[in-house]
Amino acid sequence: MSPKITTELLKQLRQVMKSPKYVQEPVQAYIVPSGDAHQSEYIAPCDCRRAFISGFDGSAGTAIVTEQHAAMWTDGRYFLQAAHQMDNNWTLMKMGLKDTPTQEDWLVSVLPEGSKVGVDPFIIPADQWKRMSKALRSAGHNLVPVKENLIDTIWTDCPQRPCKPLITLDPSYTGVSWRDKIVALRSKMAERKVLWFVVTALDEVAWLFNLRGSDVEYNPVFFAYAVIGMNTIRLFIDGDRMMDPAVREHLQLDSTLEPEFKIQVMPYGSILSELQAVGAGLSPKEKVWLSDKASYALTEAIPKAYRYLTPYTPICIAKAVKNASETEGMRRAHIKDAVALCELFNWLEKEVVPKGTVTEIIAADKAEEFRSQQKDFVELSFATISSTGPNGAIIHYKPVPETNRTLSVNEIYLLDSGAQYKDGTTDVTRTMHFGIPSAYEKECFTYVLKGHIAVSAAIFPNGTKGHLLDSFARSALWDCGLDYLHGTGHGVGSFLNVHEGPCGISYKTFADEPLEAGMIVSDEPGYYEDGSFGVRIENVVLVIPAETKYNFKNRGSLTFEPLTLVPIQTKMIDVNLLTQKECNWVNDYHQKCREVIGAELERQGRHEALRWLIQETEPLIRVQ
Amino acid sequence: MSPKITTELLKQLRQVMKSPKYVQEPVQAYIVPSGDAHQSEYIAPCDCRRAFISGFDGSAGTAIVTEQHAAMWTDGRYFLQAAHQMDNNWTLMKMGLKDTPTQEDWLVSVLPEGSKVGVDPFIIPADQWKRMSKALRSAGHNLVPVKENLIDTIWTDCPQRPCKPLITLDPSYTGVSWRDKIVALRSKMAERKVLWFVVTALDEVAWLFNLRGSDVEYNPVFFAYAVIGMNTIRLFIDGDRMMDPAVREHLQLDSTLEPEFKIQVMPYGSILSELQAVGAGLSPKEKVWLSDKASYALTEAIPKAYRYLTPYTPICIAKAVKNASETEGMRRAHIKDAVALCELFNWLEKEVVPKGTVTEIIAADKAEEFRSQQKDFVELSFATISSTGPNGAIIHYKPVPETNRTLSVNEIYLLDSGAQYKDGTTDVTRTMHFGIPSAYEKECFTYVLKGHIAVSAAIFPNGTKGHLLDSFARSALWDCGLDYLHGTGHGVGSFLNVHEGPCGISYKTFADEPLEAGMIVSDEPGYYEDGSFGVRIENVVLVIPAETKYNFKNRGSLTFEPLTLVPIQTKMIDVNLLTQKECNWVNDYHQKCREVIGAELERQGRHEALRWLIQETEPLIRVQ
Repeated sequence: MSPKITTELLKQLRQVMKSPKYVQEPVQAYIVPSGDAHQSEYIAPCDCRRAFISGFDGSAGTAIVTEQHAAMWTDGRYFLQAAHQMDNNWTLMKMGLKDTPTQEDWLVSVLPEGSKVGVDPFIIPADQWKRMSKALRSAGHNLVPVKENLIDTIWTDCPQRPCKPLITLDPSYTGVSWRDKIVALRSKMAERKVLWFVVTALDEVAWLFNLRGSDVEYNPVFFAYAVIGMNTIRLFIDGDRMMDPAVREHLQLDSTLEPEFKIQVMPYGSILSELQAVGAGLSPKEKVWLSDKASYALTEAIPKAYRYLTPYTPICIAKAVKNASETEGMRRAHIKDAVALCELFNWLEKEVVPKGTVTEIIAADKAEEFRSQQKDFVELSFATISSTGPNGAIIHYKPVPETNRTLSVNEIYLLDSGAQYKDGTTDVTRTMHFGIPSAYEKECFTYVLKGHIAVSAAIFPNGTKGHLLDSFARSALWDCGLDYLHGTGHGVGSFLNVHEGPCGISYKTFADEPLEAGMIVSDEPGYYEDGSFGVRIENVVLVIPAETKYNFKNRGSLTFEPLTLVPIQTKMIDVNLLTQKECNWVNDYHQKCREVIGAELERQGRHEALRWLIQETEPLIRVQ
Repeated sequence: MSPKITTELLKQLRQVMKSPKYVQEPVQAYIVPSGDAHQSEYIAPCDCRRAFISGFDGSAGTAIVTEQHAAMWTDGRYFLQAAHQMDNNWTLMKMGLKDTPTQEDWLVSVLPEGSKVGVDPFIIPADQWKRMSKALRSAGHNLVPVKENLIDTIWTDCPQRPCKPLITLDPSYTGVSWRDKIVALRSKMAERKVLWFVVTALDEVAWLFNLRGSDVEYNPVFFAYAVIGMNTIRLFIDGDRMMDPAVREHLQLDSTLEPEFKIQVMPYGSILSELQAVGAGLSPKEKVWLSDKASYALTEAIPKAYRYLTPYTPICIAKAVKNASETEGMRRAHIKDAVALCELFNWLEKEVVPKGTVTEIIAADKAEEFRSQQKDFVELSFATISSTGPNGAIIHYKPVPETNRTLSVNEIYLLDSGAQYKDGTTDVTRTMHFGIPSAYEKECFTYVLKGHIAVSAAIFPNGTKGHLLDSFARSALWDCGLDYLHGTGHGVGSFLNVHEGPCGISYKTFADEPLEAGMIVSDEPGYYEDGSFGVRIENVVLVIPAETKYNFKNRGSLTFEPLTLVPIQTKMIDVNLLTQKECNWVNDYHQKCREVIGAELERQGRHEALRWLIQETEPLIRVQ
């Protein structure tokens, strides 16, 4: 992977930063965040402005370009990747390390007195704007909105914004009709005494209307906003897709409906002016509810006194707690996904060990092939991380021809992959060795496994926030002086984004909502040795009520049930480092894989994969 | 303990809330925080305004009185105590429980439109003012400063503000002279480009000048402020105590000194006007550093543009990391303290078991008596919690004649106590049974012990914040559906406040600073069964570097060394619930108690207590 040469681009950007055609006054710095106008984590090609200007195309990062400098902030998952993809014009700012300055502190340290810092107001979330603006102001600078996106002005071959057909989901998948979701939302609005709710996140729009799309790769969403009033529903969406009879039927666009369920379809680009009109028409005490992560542009459309901002919207919270139909769908999706992976791993063992002709890309493609054979498969849920040896230490690695290594009997192989099925979203990581792992590799793998089990088997009171569980995943690594520089888990959508809020498991104490039964998160501790190998063990787990001996203050307890049912390679386990309880956990888990996935492999007539499954789920025996 | 009758007092308070003599406009609510003008946790009798108006005298709580309601917010430690001490005029707001409203939300729900909420601006910290003011404003109300404290206007027999003699500490205790502390502080000020630093917390003033006082019971502090400039030192303090030759000599008040070390002594009451004068004389870019917990009154004295506010001051952080002299002093103090407790527990066993004449108060007094026999004993570090049976479930219980129970062979006894010695501060809890504990009592005790060990033996990377360790203390309890409603640990001062920032171990993710070697915290998980018993096991522990097999990213690791060396009653332990590692921890700990405390008991000729120590530290044997 050779870095993108950005000298010319940066020169052009610095010119438009001073051009009266685009800015009222020159800006001395320009911020290029990761996101799109919906603060999406995964974005469409037309929104990959940060990747365009820097070359770094990981999922998280913020670029800031000043007259003299160009700097990129990203987190531990991407340190190596960003360093590879960016040329010498760029300084990498490693977030999470002690000496790395914040964006604000860095700007203050490099800017000349009284500078203007520009940003696209549609791309920056209101809460970030506020923090950044305050920090800059207190140092004598100013954050200013630049209406025209300056990257777009120099991006001559920028792709079109996608506008793909929609998929309608009936209540057998979603459990609840969109009408009932609107009713529930309005009741939350009434509780908080707000008259309007603005849906800005793409997955929230999709969830609310029981629609899916494919405007953004891996995330089954479509470009749209919605504004819900107590008696009105406005959907801002472009293209012919609203002419699709199935969509019209689903949304009852042509039916005689009670007026409060009549959906008004409006152009995507009219959201700002419509919202400004809503804002202008408010009487005192009338409030408009927005996420505090909504864009600065849309937030500013509502006068400050009328805004009701919360870190998580009622849709975000309702979406996170899966109902019975969604949970059953997620179970089905994970069974199908496990079938595909058993096929893949069986195939890999047969190909890698004797032939040595399988590359990371071939393995990733094969994984997709097996997944695509399963019912209701839609697409992958993220770019497959298929990495062997040193590539495994690049946490969010994606194999490309320049980096593509061949799997061998000498190196650890890490596969982090998942898919979108119409009934659910999967995300699973397995780390394996096709030859004989070293004692050190087994030791590290076993510490990671102990952390994985510590979270998965944890019992904790109702109302516990996920971040309180993070250290359980690290304790075995910490005991030996090891650690990993990423969080332990993220929320997972139901045939929606593979990363979703408001819950997660991380040492970062973001304002996560308490875990409750029905939420679904990943459990994925790891260990990465730069230049050598990476280990990660990831299951998607469902929060379920736990039976406990006592019940303090009648609070009730919770624990996790793994939805992912794919064997964990026992060859990699140093069984003497496990406690008897941990050993039992592995054996019980493998027994369940045998029963559930074995039955499905049998049903699908996949006998070779079944043989592989049986062989891989032999019980561990711990020598006392 | 019968509740305080507050009907008449509340009537009087509601009158002055409307009296033009005290308020420009009537206030519909009046907030009575816990603290004094220094935001102290422990306060002098003249500052116990919340206890005066409500009867509830725990260390944490905020009262709010409206025209119709009177409500008290406090945390899990005090639910039972507050319920006992307050009459029916008061509603108890149990902080930390799911359905308890915040003060702001509650005010908004009960206040008539456009209300004014009053508070003494010297008593409310600036950060709380800001949050409260914003929340009230957004609901159409106003937070207003009321200069005269309204409680003081109705408190006819309010005690005088204390003004006791000072103790000077030479560098053999403090490790660093006050001049060197000023030099270090000025270098931190220069780093942050601030010209002035305002010392508002009493323990910070005491630490900075290597002085101690006794204005506040249990906390060796004195009422004072300090304002440090780059070339000036102003100490705001009242009374004859600055005439004491030892103090004058210590502060070099009569010496010919470089002007930047010359201390100007000013009246305590002149801080506001002096600070306003400083504020008025500032040029652009000149900043004044204050804690964001300083009072609203003092913070407002500095115009907003000139304020530099941080959650923790450089003094707070420097004070938390103990130097070699302080650490050695803390070790000595804990050895003496353990000697006193061995004497006490030996005495209790001889008195309680055959005679049954020892009450909670007698036991507490006896503990103080044994402590006072030790060298450099000054006073207790907090009110001794001496509680038996159901009283043990009142987390911050203090025995009074009305509640005083007699220790017996049938109930669990919990003693949480500590002392101030000139060389250090102690805080230790032991829970014991003088007869035969039930299986359930032993089970609960053992879960608490497992939690205590999990924290004490934890190894974690440099830079880890204490709150990431909190769940380790709860895991064994959680597994059985149990928990406790308080944090796991707090910072401990060095012959200073027994509770100090900026580090701690708690599920509340306050902005704690990362743990570093030299910090000292408590490790005190518990379990409380209302109406039955309480269990808590508390050691004071020192953060020390840990040796680990590997060293990820060269970050280094930390762990804890217990400074408290008092036997943990093995009779209360269900050894079959311990892992072999936990069992070894207990045996190693007891071996150290024998060696270190045994030697000191021998040296002090306390042979009976030594016999008791030997008997109590017999190794546990775990049946495999």
